[in-house]
Amino acid sequence: MIYSVIMAGGIGSRFWPQSREARPKQFIRVFGERSLIQQTLSRMTSIVPPERTMVVTHERYVALATEQLPEIPEKNILGEPISRNTAPCIAYAAIKLLEIDPDAVMVVLPSDHLIKAEDRFIKILHKAVDMAKNSGALVTIGIQPSYPATGYGYIQYDRSAHESNGIYPVRTFAEKPNEATAERFLDSGDFLWNSGIFIWRADSILSNLQLYLRSTWAAFQDAYARLGTDQEADAIRQAYHKSARISIDVGVMERASNVYVVPGNFGWSDIGDWRAVYDLSEKNRHGNVLKGNVIIHNSSRCLVNSGKRLIAIVGLHDTVVVDTDDALLICHQNSTQQVKNVVDYLHVHQHKDFV
Amino acid sequence: MIYSVIMAGGIGSRFWPQSREARPKQFIRVFGERSLIQQTLSRMTSIVPPERTMVVTHERYVALATEQLPEIPEKNILGEPISRNTAPCIAYAAIKLLEIDPDAVMVVLPSDHLIKAEDRFIKILHKAVDMAKNSGALVTIGIQPSYPATGYGYIQYDRSAHESNGIYPVRTFAEKPNEATAERFLDSGDFLWNSGIFIWRADSILSNLQLYLRSTWAAFQDAYARLGTDQEADAIRQAYHKSARISIDVGVMERASNVYVVPGNFGWSDIGDWRAVYDLSEKNRHGNVLKGNVIIHNSSRCLVNSGKRLIAIVGLHDTVVVDTDDALLICHQNSTQQVKNVVDYLHVHQHKDFV
Repeated sequence: MIYSVIMAGGIGSRFWPQSREARPKQFIRVFGERSLIQQTLSRMTSIVPPERTMVVTHERYVALATEQLPEIPEKNILGEPISRNTAPCIAYAAIKLLEIDPDAVMVVLPSDHLIKAEDRFIKILHKAVDMAKNSGALVTIGIQPSYPATGYGYIQYDRSAHESNGIYPVRTFAEKPNEATAERFLDSGDFLWNSGIFIWRADSILSNLQLYLRSTWAAFQDAYARLGTDQEADAIRQAYHKSARISIDVGVMERASNVYVVPGNFGWSDIGDWRAVYDLSEKNRHGNVLKGNVIIHNSSRCLVNSGKRLIAIVGLHDTVVVDTDDALLICHQNSTQQVKNVVDYLHVHQHKDFV
Repeated sequence: MIYSVIMAGGIGSRFWPQSREARPKQFIRVFGERSLIQQTLSRMTSIVPPERTMVVTHERYVALATEQLPEIPEKNILGEPISRNTAPCIAYAAIKLLEIDPDAVMVVLPSDHLIKAEDRFIKILHKAVDMAKNSGALVTIGIQPSYPATGYGYIQYDRSAHESNGIYPVRTFAEKPNEATAERFLDSGDFLWNSGIFIWRADSILSNLQLYLRSTWAAFQDAYARLGTDQEADAIRQAYHKSARISIDVGVMERASNVYVVPGNFGWSDIGDWRAVYDLSEKNRHGNVLKGNVIIHNSSRCLVNSGKRLIAIVGLHDTVVVDTDDALLICHQNSTQQVKNVVDYLHVHQHKDFV
């Protein structure tokens, strides 16, 4: 059977002040009436029902996930005792799935991305699932790059050697490049953006963890033996503490031999910062994106999210304004990546109320 | 005796949202710990005590003026039933003063201006008072222009014909000029900025009102006869309704023959908008002026007034941010004159809570 595993451990500090530690990006309504994690669940329902969906998040967000995703059985919402990047998260979901279904195929998805063309996405996912189920391969979905982005990881694939049905062997995974390298990647035609979406059998990813991240594998192997006992929570806690803090990309995908990619084009974005929200939003004729009680005069290309208060904008251009009850952000469109620095500053200076 | 007449009828819509109809510019703390009207009173104390100070303001601000200026006897705070520009305001103060002192000399001052070099100002005022007391002339104070401002009225004076002690005959009063005219004014060396500060005997200004604004004079002449009776309030109301809406500059000064100016240089500003506040404020090394709970990152030449909330500014330049409990302004430094348009819009669209 096919299962979704929605990874929801991030804190989304680039979306401050709307996103806070108490309510990270995936749980807020960045677009439309539903939160990003609700949209992620919803777009999967044609291929995987909520009963076969797992959510892995930090313990402190389990209540929030349970509240926002009432369709998902509570036992499917897994709390991580500590944040250890994606490798332990995936190991945890894999042993839970293996326990209930030895043939489980996992579709691992970030909880906070946007996909505009959902039908196209589902078609590609079907291909990937077929490949993973039948071959035991590790399959990922790569995005056809539309510009030389420096904010994404890349996947180099072997265009000459495609299997049936538009699936290709992966050559390498590359970290976020600098501008010159990103240009080179784009020009080569061999590189795709790493979407962070993975498809594999639970037993396949565990075998690969055994080969390439042995201590993490061993830690979760111990926990696997104690699933369903009163020692389960303790066992998971120990497994997390024994695991290295490493992503599945670096820990497994870069090293494994049986790795494939399905290139796709379905309006994907990881919505990395407020600028991405602006770029993806519908604009008025002055290029403004306005939400709430806003008066705007001689201004263009602004994203303004008003909270409860009236906001008047005069002679302003290329600016992001996000207002909440207790904190306000005003940021140039070209500086939205630096919002993270503000959150870091607030942390260091013990402004705990605001992070 | 010398009396101050502080004119405090403005609504200061360019200082929205800190200034509102309920608390206009002169009653807010634009600089430092005291409101502008408190600073105006204070700088006059070495020449005129509070007991000889009159405040003329709209009826609705009498309570606010009484609260902010407890040193001034309540009977000296005069409420205008309707706003009719400065000519009726000055006629009202003149008849009140004439009633108590037939030799009263009035120093008429706007309530919402800034003067940095107060000692220099007081010296100039003494000259003007001497001239007005002894000659019956209408005397005004002109500011040596430091740039070709288009936001001020100008006074052309006769530099060749000065009386004793740096006092000159006025040739003309000119309205706010366009840029080319302002350049010409500055180059000529004959023009001063109109500070709106006037010095004259109460009987002199009334004689001139009789000559040049006869209906206003007649209306207040009627009221004068009823001062101190139970008809006083009614009489003043009638006088205002019978008076034309006109400034003393246009109504009298431009036409009168006995008009003199004392040029001065004492760090004067009418603080016409937020940009002026920025220009006059002490800046940090990035040119920012910050008040309240503000975090600023890679930003310069910003004026930020935080209310109760935290404001984070990232990658922003040349911007004014003014936050209050219910409304927030974000405005480019070059657009601060347009803040008035926002207030007009709020009026037209019946957003009465915000004006």
